[in-house]
Amino acid sequence: MNKVLLAIAFFLSCLLLISFKSNDWEISSDLTIDSLRKVYSQPSKFWPKPNVDKEVKFEELAGLQSTPIDLANDSIKRVIELGKLLFFDARLSGSNQISCATCHSPELSWADGKAVSLGHEQLPNIRNAPSLENVWVYNSLFWDGRAKSLVEQAEGPISAHNEMNQDLKSLAKKLNKIKGYKPYFTAAFGSSKITNQRIFESLATFQQTIVSGESSFDKFLKGDKNALTDQQLTGLHLFRTKARCMNCHHGAYFTDKDFHNIGLTEYGTKNEDLGLYNFTKKPEDVGKFKTPGLRNVMQTGPWFHQGSVKSMDSLMVLYNMGMPEHVVLPHQKDDPLVPKNDKLVRGIMLNVRERKAIIAFLEALSSPPVMIKAVQLPQ
Amino acid sequence: MNKVLLAIAFFLSCLLLISFKSNDWEISSDLTIDSLRKVYSQPSKFWPKPNVDKEVKFEELAGLQSTPIDLANDSIKRVIELGKLLFFDARLSGSNQISCATCHSPELSWADGKAVSLGHEQLPNIRNAPSLENVWVYNSLFWDGRAKSLVEQAEGPISAHNEMNQDLKSLAKKLNKIKGYKPYFTAAFGSSKITNQRIFESLATFQQTIVSGESSFDKFLKGDKNALTDQQLTGLHLFRTKARCMNCHHGAYFTDKDFHNIGLTEYGTKNEDLGLYNFTKKPEDVGKFKTPGLRNVMQTGPWFHQGSVKSMDSLMVLYNMGMPEHVVLPHQKDDPLVPKNDKLVRGIMLNVRERKAIIAFLEALSSPPVMIKAVQLPQ
Repeated sequence: MNKVLLAIAFFLSCLLLISFKSNDWEISSDLTIDSLRKVYSQPSKFWPKPNVDKEVKFEELAGLQSTPIDLANDSIKRVIELGKLLFFDARLSGSNQISCATCHSPELSWADGKAVSLGHEQLPNIRNAPSLENVWVYNSLFWDGRAKSLVEQAEGPISAHNEMNQDLKSLAKKLNKIKGYKPYFTAAFGSSKITNQRIFESLATFQQTIVSGESSFDKFLKGDKNALTDQQLTGLHLFRTKARCMNCHHGAYFTDKDFHNIGLTEYGTKNEDLGLYNFTKKPEDVGKFKTPGLRNVMQTGPWFHQGSVKSMDSLMVLYNMGMPEHVVLPHQKDDPLVPKNDKLVRGIMLNVRERKAIIAFLEALSSPPVMIKAVQLPQ
Repeated sequence: MNKVLLAIAFFLSCLLLISFKSNDWEISSDLTIDSLRKVYSQPSKFWPKPNVDKEVKFEELAGLQSTPIDLANDSIKRVIELGKLLFFDARLSGSNQISCATCHSPELSWADGKAVSLGHEQLPNIRNAPSLENVWVYNSLFWDGRAKSLVEQAEGPISAHNEMNQDLKSLAKKLNKIKGYKPYFTAAFGSSKITNQRIFESLATFQQTIVSGESSFDKFLKGDKNALTDQQLTGLHLFRTKARCMNCHHGAYFTDKDFHNIGLTEYGTKNEDLGLYNFTKKPEDVGKFKTPGLRNVMQTGPWFHQGSVKSMDSLMVLYNMGMPEHVVLPHQKDDPLVPKNDKLVRGIMLNVRERKAIIAFLEALSSPPVMIKAVQLPQ
């Protein structure tokens, strides 16, 4: 059904396309790949001005930052160690069969490769499980930002009936019965007392250590001028200019950490999801979802908050057309909740070659897969 | 540890490389892409002779065949319908949390994207969960071929302690208590009696309907001469000639359905897996594993029976070097079980451009992802 609606909206967008004007951000024909390489081989402050709307406070694309977690601090290391055990322990779920890693698997770039995860008794979630890579950069968690910290966030999936379905009242009691956990809690918190708060804190601390590795783009920024292919370099330039991606996907993590309506609310249908509005109840927040970062994005499909798009080609085509827009029905004329797409999102008229170049650039944001040794759980 | 051994074996193979001679299957410089397209646009009987060893009974690459299941037959349709429900029903597992689809998810090309699946209580399997796409073509099931039919195979994962962990003695009894299943069994088998045999038969019948969709390669075979790019066409030619892939990966499904030792036994280590030998106990079968088909192979990583290789580039490099070989230690001199690589596998000296062309060709074996509607399970 999602697909049918997307298809209809997409068709309508196509009809609108004839009224679109192309913008001025073509790669001018005198800008050869050699001159492009020369320009982008300079420090980023000398790069061409990005095509970003006036109101956008953008940060330039940049190399990986360090996590705020002090990995050299022994007492923090012990909290991380405990958090890692808890993350992989299915006994945090009501059935003892589902761990955090079930939907955030290191092998699948800390996601699960599904449109929506299947949780307790195979019940579906309503949104796509986001990758946990670089989760420390966000100021708020979940697609709708309803948790203000990773500690607050941790409670959600553990207790949700369609995720881990663990009664929170008995969570700490349950872990208390696993003798092997006591030394870990003592090491991390100074006493063997197991509380939900300590569990959530350990999980949050561990999750802040989940970060992307070095990508070709980072190598390029560090001075390896050949770390990007010609096609990837063209993609970088398009990403920053004609394609307008930088309006939302900027900075070291390719996210403004903000919320936007990109036209996927499915307003008025049984799949309706109003995102941030569900949490703030402000009409201007209808349909807004968090801007995901793009490091390792090629490994974290299917994409969008419903996981509705399985190929990056299709995703590019959707953005290229300006994304589907809700068509206001007569009875919705005065409805304050009718979703309006963010003005930053609009048709960009890239040709196939240009879209492929952007995808090639996104490939350059990939880092080698993580290898996590099997965790020996306490008994 | 797997990785370390692979790395050592790989390094040894590198040392051996200097003694390798290149073969005669270079794309001769006068064979332009245009002439290649001309040659391959003819019916396959006019294609260049493949580089296949004398003893290999190869079948030419070909378009999709139809499954042996009569999809128009109403009584078979009812068995398929029941089998599909059972496939997605986690109540076939001891914990009621794990279904066949947990490790063979349609969204992940009927596999799970992991090196090895995690089953009951998150226990790891020893081998990679293979995709179920086109599973009907095989004469035997499992990586080591120990099941002679899909019906026989179905019992394995359901009962295994580290997979679905369902006591087979109580399986039929358990489903008998779900009233909603009775009409489905009656429709499929003429009586509402639920038996393990009927469960396995339905699962097997449903699995025979899991097939690849049309790929670019199929379109090319049907006469769309531009369905393969120049690079993919070069890859097709290399696949059939210089790269020797056709020695094992041939026919419509790119598999000889046979078993080969490609050097991944990890003999003498704690990860040792002797494959077909475990089942037949014949020394000549040591280290042999089934040749997987290659349709949608780009979607079914990580690859090899341990799921040890996460990038197709790395996989190509391994084959290019002739795969790792077990180095016979002094005390193993007279050991009849010392694994010997299949003679069909040997270094092929492809350059980067050639390896990329083959990967591009493998991309041309991809078909659009399946969309499976959420199944409403009987209650």
